[in-house]
This record gives sequence, C-alpha cells and structure tokens, in this order.
Amino acid sequence: MVETEAMSRLVAAFRKLPGVGAKTAQRYAYSMLEMDGESTANFIQAIKEAKERIVLCSVCGNYCENGICKICSTRDKTTICVVGEPKDINAFEKMGGFEGVYHVLHGTLDFQKGIGVEDIRIKELASRLAGVKEVIIATNPDVSGELTASYLAGMIKPLGIKVSRLAYGISVGSEIEYADELTLQRALQDRKEL
Amino acid sequence: MVETEAMSRLVAAFRKLPGVGAKTAQRYAYSMLEMDGESTANFIQAIKEAKERIVLCSVCGNYCENGICKICSTRDKTTICVVGEPKDINAFEKMGGFEGVYHVLHGTLDFQKGIGVEDIRIKELASRLAGVKEVIIATNPDVSGELTASYLAGMIKPLGIKVSRLAYGISVGSEIEYADELTLQRALQDRKEL
Repeated sequence: MVETEAMSRLVAAFRKLPGVGAKTAQRYAYSMLEMDGESTANFIQAIKEAKERIVLCSVCGNYCENGICKICSTRDKTTICVVGEPKDINAFEKMGGFEGVYHVLHGTLDFQKGIGVEDIRIKELASRLAGVKEVIIATNPDVSGELTASYLAGMIKPLGIKVSRLAYGISVGSEIEYADELTLQRALQDRKEL
Repeated sequence: MVETEAMSRLVAAFRKLPGVGAKTAQRYAYSMLEMDGESTANFIQAIKEAKERIVLCSVCGNYCENGICKICSTRDKTTICVVGEPKDINAFEKMGGFEGVYHVLHGTLDFQKGIGVEDIRIKELASRLAGVKEVIIATNPDVSGELTASYLAGMIKPLGIKVSRLAYGISVGSEIEYADELTLQRALQDRKEL
C-alpha cells in the first residue's frame, strides 16, 4: 500500500463500514483517489445530507425525513410488527402484503452486554399499545432476540392483546440435508397437518 | 429501504465504490446512519485529507504525499518495473525482494476505448530511460496489457535496454485440472528444463 498517513487514515475510515476488511478498504481507498473532484464532493455531500436530514420517526423509530414516516402515517395501526433494526423493515416491505405498522427497538435485550429494558425502545412500544389488536414479534431468531420476544410477550399479553412470533422452520427452497439441527427440530415440532 | 431522497442519494454514492451492488450499498448507508457524529466527521475528514494531500509522484506516477515517493527516492533506478495502476505496486511490494523502481502508466493502451499512446504515461517513461539497464513490463495479462507490452518493447529495445515481461504459467498451489487452456498452453510453451 502507499505508505502515507493520509492513505492509512482513509483505509481505516473505510474499514469502519460493515464487513469491510483490509483488502476491500484498500480497494475503496484507491477508487476514492481515482475519483474526480466533483464525484468526491458529491460523495461527501450525500453523507452529510443523509446525516442531517434523516431522523427517527417519532412513532415507530424507523428512519424518515419528516418526523413521522410514511408507513406510520398511512397504514393500519391495529397490528404492530416489532423489529430489532430499521433495516429489518426492508425485508418485510420487499415481501409486501403486510398492512400493519412497525416498531423498531434499535437493539435487543442482552444482559451480558449490559443492554437492558431501558436501553431499547420498549417504553415507546408500551405507549403505542392502546387500540392495538396484535403485536407480531419479529426479532432475530437468536438468544438475544428470543429473550426480547419473551419479555415483550410478558409485558403485552396481560393487556389482552394478541402476541405472535414469526414461525421457525426450514427455509423455502433449501435442502433438508443441510438444515441445522435446531431449525429441523423446530420445523418438526411446529409441523402442520396437510 | 427507507424511502427518502437523502437515503437514495447516500446509497447511490456508495454504489460508486468498486464492486458495491445495491444490497451492500444499502448496508453501508445504514451503518453510516448509525454512526455517531464524530465518526462521521472523521470519515469525511479522511476522504478530504486524502484527496488534498495525496498526489502523483512526479517521477513514477505512484501516489505519494511529498512530490516524490519513497521508492523513487531510495531505490535502484537502473531497473524499472512498469505497471498499469498504482495498486499493482502493492502486489510487488508485498512480495518483497524487488529492489528497483516502478513506473505507473495509469492505464493501458486500448484503441477500442480510444486510449492511445498520449493518454497514458508513456512519454514520462521514455524520459526516464537514460542509464536504465532493464525494463520489466508488468501490465495485466489481458489484450490491452499485451498490446501495451509490445508497444513498449518496440520503443525501448532499440535503445539497447533489456526489456522483459513477467512469465506466464500455472499459479503456484493451483490444480492443473482447473487451469484455463491459454494459461496451460503458455506454461507448456515456456516449460523449463529441470
């Protein structure tokens, strides 16, 4: 690599992006050096603008530009789908067909990492529950996601609101041969009669 | 994806980086939104600084910060290794053991794309040849790299300077079964007696 401090710092900056290792960061840094002045200015401007304009929706916690996101202002508020991160909403919206609204926790409970009830947007969820018929919990299927799901179920069920969790099972189009044990176990437990 | 203009522009900006598709760009954009203000400022600063400070070495055309790069100012100038892009130098320096200097063409001849002799740093190479004993041509082993190599050989050989080209052959550690035909053909042609 070019042994200049500025180059090292540029590579280090790119390494902060998710999944970017030394080699990819270097590739990005070189391409940045090859960019003309206008493209670089546009790149920087896009970052600045996004950071300035994009805020959290005051209702659901998704990213938006105007205080309240499009989904919260137009959709059925009686069904709330609870996700860990804003990007999880993409998966649902890409799938289409879900008519309800979302709630982004911005994290999941993880007592080992010191992430407690106060650290994620649980209070905000509690304040949205009036009039809600169903809360679908769509946190990731890992330890922290499960813990969060059962905490939320314990909090919401007593209010007489239906609480559901996404089904576990084998992926559509996958091969059973390669399914991991836990997944297969859950798929067997939750088998459906035909 | 979050349907805001600022987000679309940020994703578009990241897509300009090499090998970054829609999904990766989106991932980077989300991580950018999650970054705190200081990290974002550092990220932007690193890009700005690199673009301001890093210039082309006035001798070899590699990136450097002080007008003349470290390699040009300390190494044996009688052997010049000619490469297409600054990043190609990394591969050689990582390998170690090469004691000569480099010359970066910043491109290779490609008449179909309209890249002619005047568009890459050939004139600059010509002006460095006094006192040089060998020019090693290390352009990529593709049509454009080959064309450039033979053009340079035609220009330099008449001056009584040795011109060489990197050897072609099977990769060390690879399996012959998977070698492509052209490579295997060259490996056979250039076979060495044991």
